[in-house]
Amino acid sequence: MRVTISGGVHGNELTGIYAVKTLQNSMPLVKNIELDFLLANPKAIKENRRYIDQDLNRSFAQEALQNDSHIYEYERAKVIRQRLQKSDFLIDIHSTTANMGVTLVLSDIDEKSTNLAKILSQEYEDVRILRWLSNEEGDFINSVVPSSMTIEVGPVCQGVLDAAVFERTMKVLRRAIEILDRDEHIQKKLEAFEVNGYKDFPRNKDELAGMIHPEFAGHDYEPLYKGDPIFVTFDGDEKFYDGDTCYPVFINEAAYYEKGIAFCITQKIVI
Amino acid sequence: MRVTISGGVHGNELTGIYAVKTLQNSMPLVKNIELDFLLANPKAIKENRRYIDQDLNRSFAQEALQNDSHIYEYERAKVIRQRLQKSDFLIDIHSTTANMGVTLVLSDIDEKSTNLAKILSQEYEDVRILRWLSNEEGDFINSVVPSSMTIEVGPVCQGVLDAAVFERTMKVLRRAIEILDRDEHIQKKLEAFEVNGYKDFPRNKDELAGMIHPEFAGHDYEPLYKGDPIFVTFDGDEKFYDGDTCYPVFINEAAYYEKGIAFCITQKIVI
Repeated sequence: MRVTISGGVHGNELTGIYAVKTLQNSMPLVKNIELDFLLANPKAIKENRRYIDQDLNRSFAQEALQNDSHIYEYERAKVIRQRLQKSDFLIDIHSTTANMGVTLVLSDIDEKSTNLAKILSQEYEDVRILRWLSNEEGDFINSVVPSSMTIEVGPVCQGVLDAAVFERTMKVLRRAIEILDRDEHIQKKLEAFEVNGYKDFPRNKDELAGMIHPEFAGHDYEPLYKGDPIFVTFDGDEKFYDGDTCYPVFINEAAYYEKGIAFCITQKIVI
Repeated sequence: MRVTISGGVHGNELTGIYAVKTLQNSMPLVKNIELDFLLANPKAIKENRRYIDQDLNRSFAQEALQNDSHIYEYERAKVIRQRLQKSDFLIDIHSTTANMGVTLVLSDIDEKSTNLAKILSQEYEDVRILRWLSNEEGDFINSVVPSSMTIEVGPVCQGVLDAAVFERTMKVLRRAIEILDRDEHIQKKLEAFEVNGYKDFPRNKDELAGMIHPEFAGHDYEPLYKGDPIFVTFDGDEKFYDGDTCYPVFINEAAYYEKGIAFCITQKIVI
């Protein structure tokens, strides 16, 4: 089995980039799998930007493949798609400004990735599973491999390394490689979270009109009830949550301002 | 007296940008001064990047003025220099990923800015004065006005608004405008910090080889002693401080990675 470990799909998420470089410099000992390392968006990494022309992690749809638009990330997506044809499993490392600890994102419901995420989530206290199946904007890099898991770690700023977050990431990543190498299995049912909605910031036309409420900031994965404060406008007006009880994630993720997402709404599920 | 308040000298420091927009939308009542608002780097603000071609806040040297290099920030610097000719005082708002609370940066030793910073520092507990007089890279925007004060607030990620940090910034900013309008004065001597050195990350040739040590992270303005841990390499090796006792600031500031600064070294002074 060939396992690709990728970082730098977003060029300013340093944790994943240096996780890949660190593993490349001191290769984990594996017996049964073949390891492959990918720095996915080298130009964006060099410029310390999320992307050059458009989000690489939304550039893997079939349309993009046929598109001759000179968008740098579409060209990269074609090269990566080719390269990942030989891979059986992908671990893609990202970071977030949200307080999400180590989140294992599953974008498919296949047995291999679910099994891996469940073992890790059971072993580590701050490791949670987030299922994020559909995405209107365009396909993730995960869509071009048979099975995959995304590691999202935070909170950490774009362009910044946080040693504590880095160390937690490496621990989970090394263990993930070991589980795949040993072909370990788990039968148990476990709790997970499933993305089923999005909430935008208050806006005046296109202009941002408010921020995440200080009492809501950092409370990813905690229950949000109708009437809880979620935003405060620049003039100090509070805005309250009006939906059904949910478990928000990606609260105040820097890269989602432009996507019109102040936080993602999830429900608890059992997988 | 004409007072200019600027934000967005760095396009991804949202706190200053929305502070300026908020004041524009609800103008503070002033009797004796004229207020002027400036969003300094509109193209970088639109793209949510620190700068387009090079740091605008290092583009105000005389050489840059004469330079016909088609660098966007040099062109902006010329326009801003022209506009600020009518201003007597500049308050320039920035944010940092470092845990610096509200820091009032003085880049000159004139009476007006020192007086303003001293009143604010005495009134608010988390407001500190940082004197940063020289800068090898090129002149700050402050160099084109007779007197000025920079407000640096943190910790906040690039491209992110933190409501608590925003509110603290607005409180200090509104009070600063009031002090200038009422021409208030203070005689007392006060403690401040003066930048007198820089420390880079561990590197292998040009490649980053380590991060801020988790025990050092977030300890801006606290004493750093010889032998204290400051870095940890990606392999887990600790690196220790080897200089005289100092008070570090800008610890792990995202924008300073590329400048070769892991933190700035300061000494306590009395002003």
